[in-house]
Amino acid sequence: MPSPTEMMSPTADLTALGKRARTAARALLRASHAQRVAALHTLADLLEQQHETILAANAEDLARGEAAGLPANLLDRMLLNPERLQAIAADTRIVAELPDPLDEQYDFAVLPSGLTRYRQRTPLGVVGMIYEARPNVTVDAAALCIKSGNAVVLRGGSDIRASCVAITTVIARALATAGLPTDAVQSITDPDRDLVRQMLRLDQSIDLIIPRGGASLHQFCRQNATIPVITGGIGVCHTYVDPTADLERAVPIIYNARVQRPSVCNSLDTLLVQRAIAAQFLPMVAQALGAAGVEFRADETARVLLQAHPDAAQWRITPAGAEDYDTEFLALILAIRVVDDLEQALAHIAQHGTGHSEAILTNDQAAAARFIAEVDASAVFVNTSTRFNDGGQFGLGAEIAVSTQKLQARGPMGLRELTSYKWVATGDWLVRS
Amino acid sequence: MPSPTEMMSPTADLTALGKRARTAARALLRASHAQRVAALHTLADLLEQQHETILAANAEDLARGEAAGLPANLLDRMLLNPERLQAIAADTRIVAELPDPLDEQYDFAVLPSGLTRYRQRTPLGVVGMIYEARPNVTVDAAALCIKSGNAVVLRGGSDIRASCVAITTVIARALATAGLPTDAVQSITDPDRDLVRQMLRLDQSIDLIIPRGGASLHQFCRQNATIPVITGGIGVCHTYVDPTADLERAVPIIYNARVQRPSVCNSLDTLLVQRAIAAQFLPMVAQALGAAGVEFRADETARVLLQAHPDAAQWRITPAGAEDYDTEFLALILAIRVVDDLEQALAHIAQHGTGHSEAILTNDQAAAARFIAEVDASAVFVNTSTRFNDGGQFGLGAEIAVSTQKLQARGPMGLRELTSYKWVATGDWLVRS
Repeated sequence: MPSPTEMMSPTADLTALGKRARTAARALLRASHAQRVAALHTLADLLEQQHETILAANAEDLARGEAAGLPANLLDRMLLNPERLQAIAADTRIVAELPDPLDEQYDFAVLPSGLTRYRQRTPLGVVGMIYEARPNVTVDAAALCIKSGNAVVLRGGSDIRASCVAITTVIARALATAGLPTDAVQSITDPDRDLVRQMLRLDQSIDLIIPRGGASLHQFCRQNATIPVITGGIGVCHTYVDPTADLERAVPIIYNARVQRPSVCNSLDTLLVQRAIAAQFLPMVAQALGAAGVEFRADETARVLLQAHPDAAQWRITPAGAEDYDTEFLALILAIRVVDDLEQALAHIAQHGTGHSEAILTNDQAAAARFIAEVDASAVFVNTSTRFNDGGQFGLGAEIAVSTQKLQARGPMGLRELTSYKWVATGDWLVRS
Repeated sequence: MPSPTEMMSPTADLTALGKRARTAARALLRASHAQRVAALHTLADLLEQQHETILAANAEDLARGEAAGLPANLLDRMLLNPERLQAIAADTRIVAELPDPLDEQYDFAVLPSGLTRYRQRTPLGVVGMIYEARPNVTVDAAALCIKSGNAVVLRGGSDIRASCVAITTVIARALATAGLPTDAVQSITDPDRDLVRQMLRLDQSIDLIIPRGGASLHQFCRQNATIPVITGGIGVCHTYVDPTADLERAVPIIYNARVQRPSVCNSLDTLLVQRAIAAQFLPMVAQALGAAGVEFRADETARVLLQAHPDAAQWRITPAGAEDYDTEFLALILAIRVVDDLEQALAHIAQHGTGHSEAILTNDQAAAARFIAEVDASAVFVNTSTRFNDGGQFGLGAEIAVSTQKLQARGPMGLRELTSYKWVATGDWLVRS
């Protein structure tokens, strides 16, 4: 196992690191589920027992961040404290107790040739994780990868490098205690930014790159990687309100989708309202969301309807610019457009959506069915909030990312999405004719 | 629909072509399975009815190829004739009659929140297919993509561009007859090689690139694409013969794996024989395969054993160079290494294998189980020939490629591997708490 000093070395040799990861991945194929579970329980225990060391390292990162004038919300994302560490340990224990994702054989068939074949779930191999300021991702990603039998190469933001070194050291101890290779979880903590570019080209050693961060990180990975990248991270999300919708019950859904946690990717950005109900419904929305401080970027029709209302003076209404329909606001802002019909709503979503989370509110089953069939997104919702697009909410137990691309995994990625399969074929000394 | 002349235009606008493909993919979401099936039956009929036009275009390609001095085996791969066209039509009808790969909903759950969710199979969207000299790939890829509801952008080798134009024109007629958008299948037939590089960066329009061709094409795609690439194509395949193997029955399997079709990726390259049986078994192999003209590249131990045999003079035995173990021979050449045990065989495969097709011949169930668990390849075989790694042999009905990467699809890619899924979640006017 490389020492923390080695891991901090400015001459980090990524090729050697990649080879160690590949060797560790092979050793994981020989490890039992019991060992993987034991490693995670030990890790959870050590996170609690070693909290002083970890928090001291984190304090170092925060001091450096403060000195560099990082904004308060970023410093908060970087912060670990005993409560947060305990929550991370608890999450690790939950992952430990999930069923073994590798214990699955499926698609059995005996073919006319006499060949018996099935698909066996396998780990992906080596996962590369690139993230920014949250040190908890170091543990989350390591836990999900260990559980699914994958080795992982972690690259956290340089702002949290001391935290990453301290946490990775604890992870290595947990792996060793369970008899697993410590190279199964390696961190690149050298702050040299070019290492990210190098990591993205280690296609001999890394099978998959998962970026966790903003749109620019995802774009950078896609442009520079020779390894498949799970992209996601951007959600321009829509909710279409159909004329048959139960308007009283629609308002809390829209409120939940926009207001509950405005800064996340599954929050609502654009409300599409069918023309026939717009005059009645839009003021209901404005009343509820306006009271929460939401600003409305409304198209001409919606703006006229809202401004004709006696309460209009209390609402922040501005005209929607063309770019508003392509913006993930991550804030208390809601774009509004009045549409003629479902067809126009579908066309709007096809043009402006990012394939993340799209909802219809309707009591018309045919409209719901058409929306489900034709919207091309990681998750499609009927009479619910878009906020449900989440591994926990979907019952996956945990999630490593939310994917908006269509290969391997779409939407929340849990343990199963961190696996592949191999074909296993057996025969009675059989040749192909 | 672009005319053949437009498709041949040297100023092909790939961005516009990509947008048309995306629009067609959206229209395919509204199309029924019956329409997709009808398009394929019409296509099969038209391939037969229009054979004169297609064969005339193909003759043009062949004349150009002959004039350019292309080798005979390449010209044969380019060749269409009435029999080949009829076989292609028959394959198209088989694909038409396979079950609808999109008709699957799975992972239903009702969660404690009240949310009901499931995964719905969906098309991937737009597939980009890059291939070389075989005009039949134009039909195969189009048929599998139409059946699975995907639009496809085809880029065949410039040697077969006239054939591709003629076939794509027929495909467009079949699509139109079934009421499907003709842009669902588009060919880039402009010979400008830079168009391949441009195509690999159309990440706004293409969801997946499938290269069909040699190692250099796969490497080029991986290096230049901003779109996920299904890589494959290289198979350095092994068969390990364990001391418990039934030696008489092992020989035909090795013969089949190496000799039946030497030029394909699932053929055998390196034979690993356990030391205890090497003296008895290697001459048996040499006798059978030597008679078929196979050359042996043997390690020191194997060479000594073989050359001590009375028939040695009839066999072509040369010392294995280090590079032989990393070579996909695609010819009647077999590398041979004597190994101490399963452990050493596994280490050899981990070091030299390309993750394609690996076999063990054994009567020891524990050895078979360990080989299955620890070999990291698209298909692992017990007591069968590696030649079974094939969509048809695995009962998939058809295949578009054999993948040696681990995302989305591994091994033979059939219709299901050309699909993704979306999450569908419904609730009774539900918000996230």
